[in-house]
Amino acid sequence: MNGAESVVRSLHQAGIDVCFANPGTSEMQFVDALDRTNLMRCVLGLFEGVVTGAADGYARMAGKPAVSLLHLAPGFANAGANLHNARKARTPMLTLLGDHAVRHRVYDAPLTADCAGAAAPFSDYVDTARSAESFAAQAMQALAIATGKPGRAATLIAPADLGWDEGGIVAAPIAPAPPAALDADALSAAVAALERDGARTLIIAGGAVLESVEAIASLHAICARTGAGLLAPTSNRRIERGRGRGAIEKIPYPIAIALERLAPYSHAILIEAQPPVAFFAYPGRPSLLLPEGCAEIRLAGFDGDGPAAIAALADRIGAKPVAIANAPLPEEPRAGAITHDSLAAAIANAIPENAVITEESITAGRQIYPTCAGAPPTSWLALTGGAIGIGPPLATGAAIACPDRRVLALQADGSAMYTIQALWTQAREKLDVTTVIFANRSYEILKQELYAVGANPGRSALDMLDLDRPELDFVALARGMGVPGRRVACARDLMRAIREANAERGPFLIEAVM
Amino acid sequence: MNGAESVVRSLHQAGIDVCFANPGTSEMQFVDALDRTNLMRCVLGLFEGVVTGAADGYARMAGKPAVSLLHLAPGFANAGANLHNARKARTPMLTLLGDHAVRHRVYDAPLTADCAGAAAPFSDYVDTARSAESFAAQAMQALAIATGKPGRAATLIAPADLGWDEGGIVAAPIAPAPPAALDADALSAAVAALERDGARTLIIAGGAVLESVEAIASLHAICARTGAGLLAPTSNRRIERGRGRGAIEKIPYPIAIALERLAPYSHAILIEAQPPVAFFAYPGRPSLLLPEGCAEIRLAGFDGDGPAAIAALADRIGAKPVAIANAPLPEEPRAGAITHDSLAAAIANAIPENAVITEESITAGRQIYPTCAGAPPTSWLALTGGAIGIGPPLATGAAIACPDRRVLALQADGSAMYTIQALWTQAREKLDVTTVIFANRSYEILKQELYAVGANPGRSALDMLDLDRPELDFVALARGMGVPGRRVACARDLMRAIREANAERGPFLIEAVM
Repeated sequence: MNGAESVVRSLHQAGIDVCFANPGTSEMQFVDALDRTNLMRCVLGLFEGVVTGAADGYARMAGKPAVSLLHLAPGFANAGANLHNARKARTPMLTLLGDHAVRHRVYDAPLTADCAGAAAPFSDYVDTARSAESFAAQAMQALAIATGKPGRAATLIAPADLGWDEGGIVAAPIAPAPPAALDADALSAAVAALERDGARTLIIAGGAVLESVEAIASLHAICARTGAGLLAPTSNRRIERGRGRGAIEKIPYPIAIALERLAPYSHAILIEAQPPVAFFAYPGRPSLLLPEGCAEIRLAGFDGDGPAAIAALADRIGAKPVAIANAPLPEEPRAGAITHDSLAAAIANAIPENAVITEESITAGRQIYPTCAGAPPTSWLALTGGAIGIGPPLATGAAIACPDRRVLALQADGSAMYTIQALWTQAREKLDVTTVIFANRSYEILKQELYAVGANPGRSALDMLDLDRPELDFVALARGMGVPGRRVACARDLMRAIREANAERGPFLIEAVM
Repeated sequence: MNGAESVVRSLHQAGIDVCFANPGTSEMQFVDALDRTNLMRCVLGLFEGVVTGAADGYARMAGKPAVSLLHLAPGFANAGANLHNARKARTPMLTLLGDHAVRHRVYDAPLTADCAGAAAPFSDYVDTARSAESFAAQAMQALAIATGKPGRAATLIAPADLGWDEGGIVAAPIAPAPPAALDADALSAAVAALERDGARTLIIAGGAVLESVEAIASLHAICARTGAGLLAPTSNRRIERGRGRGAIEKIPYPIAIALERLAPYSHAILIEAQPPVAFFAYPGRPSLLLPEGCAEIRLAGFDGDGPAAIAALADRIGAKPVAIANAPLPEEPRAGAITHDSLAAAIANAIPENAVITEESITAGRQIYPTCAGAPPTSWLALTGGAIGIGPPLATGAAIACPDRRVLALQADGSAMYTIQALWTQAREKLDVTTVIFANRSYEILKQELYAVGANPGRSALDMLDLDRPELDFVALARGMGVPGRRVACARDLMRAIREANAERGPFLIEAVM
């Protein structure tokens, strides 16, 4: 058995059965091994950012990694932005990065570059296979590191010759390290804060907490019992939300609004969340968002078990389950232009039962998250690392993980163009994805940021932020990749178009002209 | 004056007047400075790989760098593959990479990542601005390093606060280091080899040599005088070729053919070229391509002056200018399917006078380069680093540099999809680019590579190499980005379509179905 086959067989034994791939010559032994063993579903991306973004979406929903198969340092670079996003989401990611054969590396062939160096900034763990014999064991080690708490991006560099060399040995799975134990002192401090001054205590909960309907219910019980505030981080891997689950507000993105929202609190209990920080620094503004003097109580770190910490906290303060008040659905939008409000209303009224939502939008989509609090239950996946271009692949991977659920991709136009190639994979794999493009023809968020630094922009600046010359025709782009679509400019038509798309099988794209 | 403005003014004084940009929040002070000073043409790319690929194409034709303005480590990653290609081309590249404000970096904001680490594998030089006062001087140093011999990729990391801080000082240009002096011993060795056994001596010339019509003529004179062989590397930054310039064959890509082609030689004279190496290692095949025992004479390194070395060599052996025999143009293709041969014939007969050709194709385009030896004079730019996805941006940048020349982009379908967003920039800037997509619906080269590693591929393997499910519709993709186009399936129609597109202003795309 060659090294490549030993890796494929070992990963499959460990439960890995999907491979997102954009292979090249140095991965041909893996392509061959995947083909001969027929143990994994292989999904081709036309660009490496599609591969890692899809692997992220898959893992967020499947709760286990897929394999991303990439080609040399430039291929890793192309994949890097969405690996960055996955890292910030703490999604478990396992990347196999093919490299030149060991003996070939010294000759500066055209594709030679520093694979380990390229991988390092976008990986939590980088290893290089040493021999065909050790290859599978190294893969099991990388997998264990990826899947332990918190989820990590593990990259294993795979020199071509170690894939084709004989001597591969199938390796047994390695159990990931258990989560960090609950910190009893932090628990006591949290109880004290909540009991002494609940109304001025804020709970910020992220990570696995937001993926647990039970943990979310316990949080609401704790807040009902103590009067504490509750916020989620601005960007999250997955939130289980919607009707019957209790709304959780997110820390606002705009720094002025965030500072105001957090100002009342004297204590912050952090559960799988870090102290909130501004996306960017601005002249004369702080980087950290909690008010000065606010005490931080780190109840569970990213490596801890947030849901268990919440259960312990609820127990200590005697919080009892509370009835969840359902947020109202907004009225269906009337015929008329698509504004931020009518966009949100159209979407809230078109979300099907049990959908997966992917959201990549800042300005156009700002109303959507709160407006959908009373929509049917959904899994809500967001851009986590700020590197735009996650949406189309994220939806693709989520649909692979959840073949019985509709995926609704809420997508800004500017960011869609970074990884638009994902639509082709959606068509190829016949995935049930409805993509709604918010076509405001602008990097709208950057215009706001430009004003925020005090500029008075002229034509040349606006030319770097406007997307209206020429207008992008997303319906044509989708058709070019085998995805049907339509353009709508009326909010009521938009709602109906989403409902119709959701009722059919396969991908569909709706360009919502704003 | 703030730091950003001092950098823009200094670069402009040094002759830099084009900026390819995909900015984000941390570059808003540069957007503002570029806007207020109005000293540079700012060209927006919808994806960072478009930005660096266009900067490469621009610099190859303009002989000086543009500025690439990028956003944080993930933005650099997106730009990395085409920076890799530029590095391998030794194109002078200057990248300004915006980073978080210095004080903001410690807080792990969503977009925080290691900018210097991300830049290192794809840069020859990385520096980080230290203060508003030193910012422009550091930019001048980076520019000098980029533009010295050989061309280098210089990256200057620009923390946001140093851009907005006051105290910027306009800095004077720094002269780049001169090329390395001619090695007299190497010259004598080259003369001896040519005089003793010219027929078994091979000259391999690359880099600036191929950009000099005079140097190419001298090479032909030397070969005529001595019987020496002459080859160019497989991939080159720019070759001035076509009618009246003398054909230069390239080292073949397929390893078996390359080994056979190089077998006869006992001496290799290397001029701005390295000893030829296989693109990839294969089981049982050598990495280096020159025959065993072949003596390497390094007449000029990448840091040397190849044209001067050739002039000295011609002088020493008394080579006199020779009449250049023009290669014949192939017959115009008849109506019929587009095959490798008829594709090449159609293109050779449709190349307009004084065109710039960009070429990114391995299998479908293999016949094109030799077939076009007798076409009108062109500047011929190729994929240099093997990282596919250079073609559409390369053509875009070349067209910005050469507004009075038609650019003909010869483009494989699979690689086109990595940076297809460049078409939008072509439409926006009304660039005279004719793109011909070779639609063979396959990563054809990878199929050949899969067979080369001994595989007998089944459905799952072929699914990772075929692009025919669904078929990509490049005419729809182009229309989606504002570029008109048409599909042709007949070789004669293809020739006519290229001629027609060349006769109009603005971009046009032709999908050639093979």
